[in-house]
Amino acid sequence: MSSDPVNIVPVILSGGSGTRLWPVSRPEHPKQLLPLTADETMLQLTAVRTRGFEGASVGRPILVSNAAHADIIDEQLQQSGIADYQVILEPIGRNTAPAIALAALEAQGDDALLVMPSDHVITDLPAFHAAIARALPLVVKGWLVTFGITPDGPETGYGYIQMGDLCGEAVHDVARFVEKPDSANAERMLAEGGHAWNAGIFLFRADAYLAAMETHQPDMLKAVRTAMTQAKRDGAHIFPDAMAFHACPSDSVDYAIMEREAQVACVPVSMGWSDVGSWDSLHAVSTRCADENAVRGDALLLGTRNCLVHSDGPRVTLVDVDDLIVVVAQGDVMILKRGESQKVRKVTEALKALDAAKAAD
Amino acid sequence: MSSDPVNIVPVILSGGSGTRLWPVSRPEHPKQLLPLTADETMLQLTAVRTRGFEGASVGRPILVSNAAHADIIDEQLQQSGIADYQVILEPIGRNTAPAIALAALEAQGDDALLVMPSDHVITDLPAFHAAIARALPLVVKGWLVTFGITPDGPETGYGYIQMGDLCGEAVHDVARFVEKPDSANAERMLAEGGHAWNAGIFLFRADAYLAAMETHQPDMLKAVRTAMTQAKRDGAHIFPDAMAFHACPSDSVDYAIMEREAQVACVPVSMGWSDVGSWDSLHAVSTRCADENAVRGDALLLGTRNCLVHSDGPRVTLVDVDDLIVVVAQGDVMILKRGESQKVRKVTEALKALDAAKAAD
Repeated sequence: MSSDPVNIVPVILSGGSGTRLWPVSRPEHPKQLLPLTADETMLQLTAVRTRGFEGASVGRPILVSNAAHADIIDEQLQQSGIADYQVILEPIGRNTAPAIALAALEAQGDDALLVMPSDHVITDLPAFHAAIARALPLVVKGWLVTFGITPDGPETGYGYIQMGDLCGEAVHDVARFVEKPDSANAERMLAEGGHAWNAGIFLFRADAYLAAMETHQPDMLKAVRTAMTQAKRDGAHIFPDAMAFHACPSDSVDYAIMEREAQVACVPVSMGWSDVGSWDSLHAVSTRCADENAVRGDALLLGTRNCLVHSDGPRVTLVDVDDLIVVVAQGDVMILKRGESQKVRKVTEALKALDAAKAAD
Repeated sequence: MSSDPVNIVPVILSGGSGTRLWPVSRPEHPKQLLPLTADETMLQLTAVRTRGFEGASVGRPILVSNAAHADIIDEQLQQSGIADYQVILEPIGRNTAPAIALAALEAQGDDALLVMPSDHVITDLPAFHAAIARALPLVVKGWLVTFGITPDGPETGYGYIQMGDLCGEAVHDVARFVEKPDSANAERMLAEGGHAWNAGIFLFRADAYLAAMETHQPDMLKAVRTAMTQAKRDGAHIFPDAMAFHACPSDSVDYAIMEREAQVACVPVSMGWSDVGSWDSLHAVSTRCADENAVRGDALLLGTRNCLVHSDGPRVTLVDVDDLIVVVAQGDVMILKRGESQKVRKVTEALKALDAAKAAD
């Protein structure tokens, strides 16, 4: 592998279309394209996250996105002052392993791909940059590096990484990847130490990733390679061949590649990270005013504590209520208790059932 | 006084512009003009309340209203199939005593005026009709009759009527009017019995009312008489002279007339009455579905109990919350606890202060 100065290429994965932040996030408006945590959208925050990094040059970012979001991504990147970028527009979602391979084939072999989901927040950028700097020496040597979030609680919603021996400056071998644990196992790992949350943020050379895929997922690589060889291009937009990409197996980078490779390292880092996977976690990462309320949009709070209010227009007035999540978006008003935001799933399931019942009429 | 068959003229007072049901009721949309308790507005429900009454003929209703609401009143009465009516359009509000006098001067002297606020609900119409029938013999003789609601709790928000001796079939002399009591006095009156709530619903001959006003409020009568003598007329609309009506003293019929007259009777009645003076009282009078929720508008309630939901458009989804009042109207979302709806006043005062601060900028 080369020992020239390394070039980092941000690879921003914008494939998600979750509904855990319903009624704000919907398939047509996934959360990364919405301003939930700041005036900027999470995609915009992700796109500027490497600004000011000093340990290497940072090249033109590559986004991998649902084709339906091409226009809004262009608009948001331009708003953020990012003129030079590429967007690979997936004709269908095939999970993260093929998505990253699309970008790896577009990049130079010796580019270090900094793979970032587009819908996470990181509040401590210097900590993130320092972690990247610690990873680079191993990356240059061909290791696959994952950033492991130092846990601050026994979360059951994330996969964990058990760290092994040191293999660099505050960088560890990955002993093993642990699937989302039950509560007892999460408590145990937290008490034991040496475990980190798997945040889906990676750094590796493009050629190292493709070599690992060649080893562990040859069919996947073949399909992605065909899709990119036959891709159409229009300015910043790259359209992989739809038929070839349809034929590609679907799998996550964790299962398909990371868990199977030997030279995998973890950089533990504490950087104010959140995947904003629920209204509760949005409350946790939001700037809170007096009385622990977090507000976006027009709100009048009287005698109200520990509430999250999010409105895309209507003014929300709360009087002497505590611990509520109130979301007003796109003609829906949703109210549930703080600490219970996983129940959004009950709502989206009930609505799906209602829609199905209507359709059956 | 005449002993001919009596003619009842409904007099519907639509002067209110309260904000106790904010954000739905506002000065430009007072609650009587809104469908809060049914598909019909409370004005519409009031206008058809004498339909089917069999104890006397019922003549053309006279409405007394804020001039600003002329068009919407026409529209609502026509929707309700009421083609023949008169609306006296007040150039300014002067409280109920002058408002009723305007109607009394428009009616025939021997008409029995059935005075009804336009923003109350009565669910048991047969009970109301029976009470009217019991009142009529005294009304014909020139008594002023008030309908007293049999209390079902120690309410402190209403004036009370202490009933004296019987003066008809289940009709009592009024011993005295009691102002809104404190809680101890309300409890005492409820325990004692013989007290009723003053609901502001009256029945008296037009000439008896005007004679009482001549005795107790000669200046008021003079001003109202001038305003009506000089009134302009346009179809169903009557415009009292603004300058004359401005000069009229402002007072309620209770203070100005009823408390001062000798021949005043009370017909106690239990008829599912409510003045819908708060979101809590709306919840109390509303048809409730399972789990004691009362809903108007589009709502999805999951694991929700004892809530009131009122929406003029957006769908409201509640998940595992209890005892909330949620009102969505005209670009506002208001949430407070059930049992605390008097706190709407805190909201309207806070908004007034905000508006004042903005205006001062």
